[in-house]
This record gives sequence, structure tokens and C-alpha cells, in this order.
Amino acid sequence: MNTAVRTIDPNSDAAIAAGIEPRPIEEISGRLGVPLEALYRYGPYKAKIDLGFAGQAAAKADGRLILVTAINPTPAGEGKTTTTIGLGDALSRIGKSVAIALREPSLGPVFGSKGGATGGGHAQIVPMQDINLHFTGDFHAITAAHNLLAAAIDNHIYWGNALDIDARRINWRRVVDLNDRALRSVIVGLGGPGNGFPREDGFDITVASEVMAIFCLARSLEDLEERLGRMVVAQNRARQPITAAHLKVTGAMTALLRDAFQPNLVQTLEGTPALVHGGPFANIAHGCNSVIATRAALGLADYVVTEAGFGADLGAEKFLDIKCRQAGLTPRAVVIVATVRALKMHGGVAQKDLGPENVEAVARGTGNLVRHIENMKAFGLPAVVAINRFTSDTSAEIAAIEAACAAVGASVHLCAHWAEGSAGAVALAEEVVRLADGTSHFQTLYDNDLSLAGKIETIATRIYRAGSVAIEPGALKKLGEFEAMGYGGLPVCMAKTPYSFSADPSRRGTPEGFVLPIREVRLSAGAGFVVALAGEVMTMPGLPSHPAAENIFVDDTGFIGGVF
Amino acid sequence: MNTAVRTIDPNSDAAIAAGIEPRPIEEISGRLGVPLEALYRYGPYKAKIDLGFAGQAAAKADGRLILVTAINPTPAGEGKTTTTIGLGDALSRIGKSVAIALREPSLGPVFGSKGGATGGGHAQIVPMQDINLHFTGDFHAITAAHNLLAAAIDNHIYWGNALDIDARRINWRRVVDLNDRALRSVIVGLGGPGNGFPREDGFDITVASEVMAIFCLARSLEDLEERLGRMVVAQNRARQPITAAHLKVTGAMTALLRDAFQPNLVQTLEGTPALVHGGPFANIAHGCNSVIATRAALGLADYVVTEAGFGADLGAEKFLDIKCRQAGLTPRAVVIVATVRALKMHGGVAQKDLGPENVEAVARGTGNLVRHIENMKAFGLPAVVAINRFTSDTSAEIAAIEAACAAVGASVHLCAHWAEGSAGAVALAEEVVRLADGTSHFQTLYDNDLSLAGKIETIATRIYRAGSVAIEPGALKKLGEFEAMGYGGLPVCMAKTPYSFSADPSRRGTPEGFVLPIREVRLSAGAGFVVALAGEVMTMPGLPSHPAAENIFVDDTGFIGGVF
Repeated sequence: MNTAVRTIDPNSDAAIAAGIEPRPIEEISGRLGVPLEALYRYGPYKAKIDLGFAGQAAAKADGRLILVTAINPTPAGEGKTTTTIGLGDALSRIGKSVAIALREPSLGPVFGSKGGATGGGHAQIVPMQDINLHFTGDFHAITAAHNLLAAAIDNHIYWGNALDIDARRINWRRVVDLNDRALRSVIVGLGGPGNGFPREDGFDITVASEVMAIFCLARSLEDLEERLGRMVVAQNRARQPITAAHLKVTGAMTALLRDAFQPNLVQTLEGTPALVHGGPFANIAHGCNSVIATRAALGLADYVVTEAGFGADLGAEKFLDIKCRQAGLTPRAVVIVATVRALKMHGGVAQKDLGPENVEAVARGTGNLVRHIENMKAFGLPAVVAINRFTSDTSAEIAAIEAACAAVGASVHLCAHWAEGSAGAVALAEEVVRLADGTSHFQTLYDNDLSLAGKIETIATRIYRAGSVAIEPGALKKLGEFEAMGYGGLPVCMAKTPYSFSADPSRRGTPEGFVLPIREVRLSAGAGFVVALAGEVMTMPGLPSHPAAENIFVDDTGFIGGVF
Repeated sequence: MNTAVRTIDPNSDAAIAAGIEPRPIEEISGRLGVPLEALYRYGPYKAKIDLGFAGQAAAKADGRLILVTAINPTPAGEGKTTTTIGLGDALSRIGKSVAIALREPSLGPVFGSKGGATGGGHAQIVPMQDINLHFTGDFHAITAAHNLLAAAIDNHIYWGNALDIDARRINWRRVVDLNDRALRSVIVGLGGPGNGFPREDGFDITVASEVMAIFCLARSLEDLEERLGRMVVAQNRARQPITAAHLKVTGAMTALLRDAFQPNLVQTLEGTPALVHGGPFANIAHGCNSVIATRAALGLADYVVTEAGFGADLGAEKFLDIKCRQAGLTPRAVVIVATVRALKMHGGVAQKDLGPENVEAVARGTGNLVRHIENMKAFGLPAVVAINRFTSDTSAEIAAIEAACAAVGASVHLCAHWAEGSAGAVALAEEVVRLADGTSHFQTLYDNDLSLAGKIETIATRIYRAGSVAIEPGALKKLGEFEAMGYGGLPVCMAKTPYSFSADPSRRGTPEGFVLPIREVRLSAGAGFVVALAGEVMTMPGLPSHPAAENIFVDDTGFIGGVF
């Protein structure tokens, strides 16, 4: 028995959510015009939307797409997900037909230190415990599909290795949807001939799987299976690529993913429909919810609010250059989320000193925000700023932000959706409608036919403001190989620290003229991008000394407490 | 793309199932008196029954319980699951209120060589593809709960090891719900200080997890969590047991299992309600579906038909001595399934020679069947024999079986439910009703207070007909330690080959007087039994050279083909 005290904090997100009765999911689907026969219910408050129906909606996809992104994240917190939810609720409030499109949480952070990913306060999606724990099983399906392929590789070698797979050059690791550092680097196949050939291996967290990235970029089940088949999992002794198709399990993988691929429907605390589907890593993958869900939402609602991982330098850039490019999406407006406290940190203030007014620091830190606004203009997109209000914020600090943003043509809106729900984000919603109803001038940052190195350089210099890029010789050679293999037309997926425009996480604010190092590149042929790694990327997190899991419990009514 | 031909065999189980429109799950639950508000739907044809309602039904549990078991399995096949389903349908047909209680399939065999576990022909539970692939996610939840505990162990050591866990004496392996021999024996924690301490580890298939055994024996969520807390996962340097409770994640594990713990409801092709829930290994665990589902079924229907793993020597004995003992269940009758072909194999005929009539071999092989009938009498239970009919069976062969069974008071019924559905098992159903309506004289084979070695000896000599038991000195010492720790009152869970009464799988028929070797014993303190291993037990299967996964595909209508 867990020895922790088992009480529900009345101010916790779980308690706030528990105080509001959700509407039956049939009512939520009705708002989107989803007929009952296209609703695949998971209990009273969750559902999947039949793929046939979702596919028809996705083919239409004529709504206005709004991206919520943020400044470079700081320990002070910004509130991107709550803003996405609060904005969706506020759009509903002012009478618009709206759907929210979010990522699904991974179990790793839920049991680690980050907690859940369903918003907070009065801007939440519910049922929050369900969404944070298993939800409709999509990530488990992805885990199973990924690991089936891994088992098929070792099994193929065991039974004679007709494909001549080089056991030293298998790049298909295994996955588990947990934070488990002991699995980062392992040796498998020990114990004698009956267990196969010993080799180095490792586990990533499921969200880092290329299957997850594919799941989130595929337009249809057929597209999904074709992409799975293209994944390069190893090389043979002649250094030729071995793909998943060679292992003959892409049909079974697709069968495992069939139900999962249907978008999930839930609701906000105010009953706004939310499609919560997929959740790829934002470093080695593109960090956005699924294309099928986003496109279906656009076919079912007039306005769709979605978010991307990390800050706008990584998340928005990849949303626009990878997801929108592949999915044929034309976003209409961008919301950039910040807090006064976070801007202070970008202005050089330490976390312990965030309390007192410091207009100068805010003004300095706003440089980070302004640069993201300018970057959105490089994509032809209008931006609006949402400031998640804290009671400690002063009007002079707010004025400093407004002045700086006005200079680049962006309005600033103070938001209180965390405390007030939709009423706290009405002004933001009205401005978003104004922008989204205008003509879109969206364009990707670079063309497909630019070289891979050229794409990296374009992102680094134009978005990050690097002075130059230093691609390691080995990585440069690999880029050439990818191009020779016919993958030169793919977009680039940057894996960089989210905490800075540069590759150095300690450089907050507006670093420029730095050299961006590219240490390694990887081909994600199924997902359809080339990953460029500017530094170490951790694809399997560890648990902290006191994991959040220690606080989670089920009380005698069946209520799950301790999930943030 | 899978290169296999993607056509649906019109005689396959999948095609037969696809030809019959299932009834809405609300109609099935209605037959059991489950109100709509207690129904947690997973789409139109699957549901979970709310735990509060299921718990009330389980507290009542006043129906008649019928166990379907079998002779020692042979490569010729017996058809235990089809008989369970066919009998359930036949009981419905003759007007009885009935529910079937079955185990959930594991993904391992589905992708390996065994195929699915949803019956066959016209005796199937549906939707068969869904049940065989993920179903309602229960096994994934068990996998996640199991692996969270594993991560917590390594994480505890990483952060200072306050419990002084001896890394050489961790017996909590990890699990994955796949056949993956490369994971049987691994080294984890490699790669440097940031990844923890390297140590030997391994993966079992999820059905071998003690969490699975607990899931299937717990009476309530509270009982579930208490049992999880009692699991011994390691020893400290002073050789004291470290339990899951010490790791403080049993609350989170219970939260992960909360929804899964609700029994699943599906239907047969004829619309008979089937509770399909849990699926522990039949060797190192007890091999029966969940207690919560069985008891709930008994509270909702007059007759409940369930099955146990392997043959009656292992499956029925463990069902009766472990599950019924722990769950307070009183079964009323036992059905022993056999085929003429399988009895021929027990009579010494090779698989290739099963075609021609061979009355003598059948008569010899019937000894195996007769012994199982006698064994059921040792538990005070009446038995009836179900022969799954093949067109090659002759009347002389059947007569030989009938004569032998009549001598021990058991009637024999020819069954054709595979080809005909319920109509093919009416005579069996009528005899089962007659037996189940009689007074039950059920008693367990041994009392709780018999010593652990005494329990092993009792099972070996009375059920298996061993001459004696040879417990290895190390195992005997451990039994003493378990008793000293206060676990002497637990029942014993035998892990023996299912193919013979003896520990030698090649000895079909009626071996007797042999020495049963007990090589190892293990404590499953949470499940509440001591495992005695009579030989090697494989807890992680491997895939064959051509896994069934290679035949599975999704066609352009979304239909999943290639699942048996």
C-alpha cells in the first residue's frame, strides 16, 4: 500500500475537473455533425471517429487552422496547452464552430515529473485521468507495432538471415511508453543459441518511435502502411538498406494500428470538441498531433486550434515545414504564448527573483518573443501574442511587451482562461478570428528541391539566426548518401535544445551569429524527413528521485488522484 | 507492403464470423440484466461492465459454474474453447440463462503460430479480430503496470538505493506482450553512469507476469492493490524480501489497472453473452480467466461455462485448488473434451497415421480420458465427456470411448458445434444441466494447512499418479523459507509439461509410478501461490520461421484478414 497521504487537493486540476459534469460524448460529436453511426464510443465521455467518416471530413478540410506556439520555454512556464484550450473555448463562446486538435500524453511524463498534458485550471480537456492514463490505447498499439517489427528482425536473423542483415547495423531499437533509463542501452539475445545472437540494442520511449511519427503524418491507412514499409531498420552486409517491408510484418503492424488510427474525440470543461490524437517527440520528430485528426477537424469545424511542441523556433517551424507541407495544410494565424515571468527569465532574471516588478528585464526578454513573431512572418503568417496573466504582473511590464510587439505589428492579449475559462480569452479569440478570416499568405520556409544541407542552413540562419552551420564530416557524408538514395527532397526535422535559439540551452533571450553544430543526421524514410541533431538528444527519459507515480492512487470510489 | 496474397479464405474463422451480423452490445448486456448506465462501451460490439455493478453481481454469484477442460493436449487438437462456446450456445438454445467466461488472447500467439483464441467455425466469440488484437487494452495496461514497477526498481537503485536492494537478487523481470526470444536474457543499465547500474535482466511475455495472475485472482480493486503490494520483487543485501509496496508505485499500478479490471463483455456468433477477461499463463500461473468476471457472470446468469488452460491434470487442478479456493467458488460439473484423433495419439498412433479406423488405439488412449474423469471425482465433481466429432470418426471408435467412460460413470456426447453451432451440442447441454442442477460435493484436493511439500506430493501422486516426488535440495530449502516467512498456507501452482501426466512430454496415455522432479520453486506472494516447476518453463516464447504475423493484413475496407 502506498504510504503517501491520499487526499485530493481541492485546487488541483483533477479536483477542478471533477467538479464539472462532462456532457455525453454524443452531444459533443453532434456539435461537429458526426453521426452516431460514425461514433466509436469508449465509455460515456471518449470516442473514436470512424475512419471512413473521418477520412471524408479530412478530404474536405476547409476550416481555418490556427497554430498556438510559444516563446522558448523556461522553468517559469508559459501555458501553451491551456491557451490552446482556452482559445478554443473562447471561440465557442463568441459563437464560432470550433474544434481543438491536441497531442495525446505519454505515460512517461505522467509518472515522471512533468505530470499530465491535458491543460490546467479551467482550461482542461476531460476526462483528464483517462486521457493521461492509456486513453484509448493508441500509444500501446504503436508500442506493439514497433516491437513486433523489432522481434521480426531478430527472428529473421535467428532463422537463417536470408536478408543478410548486419547485426551491427540494426538501427531499429525497441520502445516502451515509460521513463526507464536502465533500458537506454542493453544487450539482447544472451543466454545461448536458443535465444539468438547477442547484440547491442536499446529502448526509446514510444513517442520517439518512427511509427509514432508516421502515425501522425499518414493521410490514410494505405499511406500508413506504405510509410511503414519504407522505414529503414538496418543495413545488410553490403550496406544496402533493409526496410520494414522486407520483414513482411507491415500488414500486421497496420492491423495493430487500425483502430488507433481513428481520431479520438473528447471535450473541454466547457464542452468544446477536442480531437486528441498522436503525440510524436518534438526533437527527433515533428511534435504535432496527427494529420488525420487535424484535417478531420478542419472538415468538421470552421476554426481549428492546434499546438506544436516546444517554442516556435522548433515546434512551429516543424509544424509548418513538415506537417503542413506533407499534409497540404494552410494555416491562417499563429498565437505565440508567453508569460511576464518567462520573459523576465529571457531578460536575464533568475527564477528565484521573478517576483518583483522588473520592466527592464521584461523589455529585454521580449526580444525573444519579437523574434518568434518575425519568424512567423517569414512563413507569411500573422501572429498574435497571448500573455497568460499572473497576479504579480504589473501594468508597466505589460506595457513594455505591448510596445515591443506593436513595433512588429502584433497585438498582445492578456489571458485569464486558467482562472476563468473562456471568459478569460475572449479578446484573444476575437483577434484570432480577425486574422484567420484574412487571406493566407502561408509559404513554407524552403522548397523541396533545396539540398538537405541547404535546408538545415536555411532554418539555422533564418529562424535561429545562427551565423553559420557546422555539419560534422560524417553527417555531411550521410546527407550525400541520403540524397543519392533519393531522399534529397525530404524536409529536415531539427533536433535542438528547445530552451534557446542556439544549441546552448543556457543562452536565453536572442542569441545570434553563433555556429550551429550538426553532429549527426538520421533518415526517417517512412515519416518522410531527415533528422538533423544539433547536440545530444535523449530518446529515453529517466525518472526523478521521487517520481510523480508515487502520488497517484485510486480511492474507494474509483477516483484516480495524484495525476496533475 | 506485405507481399503475401491478400485474400480471405471463405472457410476461415474470420470469414465465417464476418458472415454473421453481431447484435448490438446493449442487446447482449440486456440479456444479463446489465443496465445501460453500467455499460462502458468500446464501440458497438464490445463493452466493459462498470466495476460497481460487476462487484454487486460478483457478491451474489449464485449461478451454476461449469468447467470445460480436456485430456492432455496432443498435436491432433481437442477443441476446448470451441466446446466452451458451443456448450454456452447450446445452453442458450435450450432456454437457459447463460454466460460464458473465457480468457483474453495474448498478442504473442496471434503473431506466432497458434493464432487467435476466440474459438472456431460456428463456435466463435466476436468481434474476433478485435478480441485477438488489443481487445479493450487490458494486457497493455498490465504490461504498463508491470514495467512501471521494473522502472521503479532500477530508479530506486539509481537514486541511492535506500532500500539496499541487491542488484544480483532482483527477480522482477520486464514484460512485453509479444513472442520475442531475443529479450529472454538481456543486460540492462549499460552506457555509463547516467543510465544506472548494469545488471542481468530479461523479459517475459505479459501473460507470465504476476500482475496478470493477481489481476485474475483479485476480488476487488482494494484486494488488487494489496496483492500488488505483497509481490516480492527482490532481496536486500541482508536477504530480506523487498516488496512492490516498498517501491511506492502500487497506487499508480492500480490506477493503470482500474479500467482494465472491469470485465469485458462480448458475444458468441449466436448472441450468447461472453465475459472475456484476463489470461494468465497456465504453467507458472493458474491459467484461468479473472475471478471478478467469473463471479460477476455467476451473479448475472443461471449457468456459467468457463475453461481452464491445458489438460485437466494442470488446468482443472489449478482452477479448482487455486482459483475456486481463493475465490470461494463451488463448481457443479466438469466437461472433459477429447477427439477420437487425440485419443488415438494417446493410444500410441503417430500423427500421420490418424486417418484409418483403429479401435484398439482409441480404447488404449481412452485411458488418459478415464483418468481425468476419475481425477474430477477426487474433487467431488461429476464429469461428462464431449467428443468433438470429425467425419473420419467411426462408430466402433466412439463405442470404445463410450464403454470405457460408462465404466467410470461418465456419459459421452458427440458434438458438432464447430460445424453446426448450438444445434451440435444440445445433448451435451442437457446432460450438463442435469449434472449442474444436482447437489455439489466439491472439495479442494488438499487443505491449506498441509505443508508445501505435502501439497506438491498430493497433487503428484493423486492427480498425476507419480510414484514419488523428488524435490531438489535447493527447492526444498526454499519451501522451508517460504513457510518460515508465513506463506505455508498458500496453494501450490504446478508448472509441468501439459502433454503428459508425467514431466516427460513424450509419455502420452497413462504413465504411472514415475518420479516427478521438482527442480525449482518460486513464491508468488501477491497472486497467493507457490510455483513448483517440474522441468524447464519457457516464459518468453519465440516466433517461428514464418510467423502468423506475415499473413495478417488490412484490406481497403478496413477488414483485418489473416487472423485465425
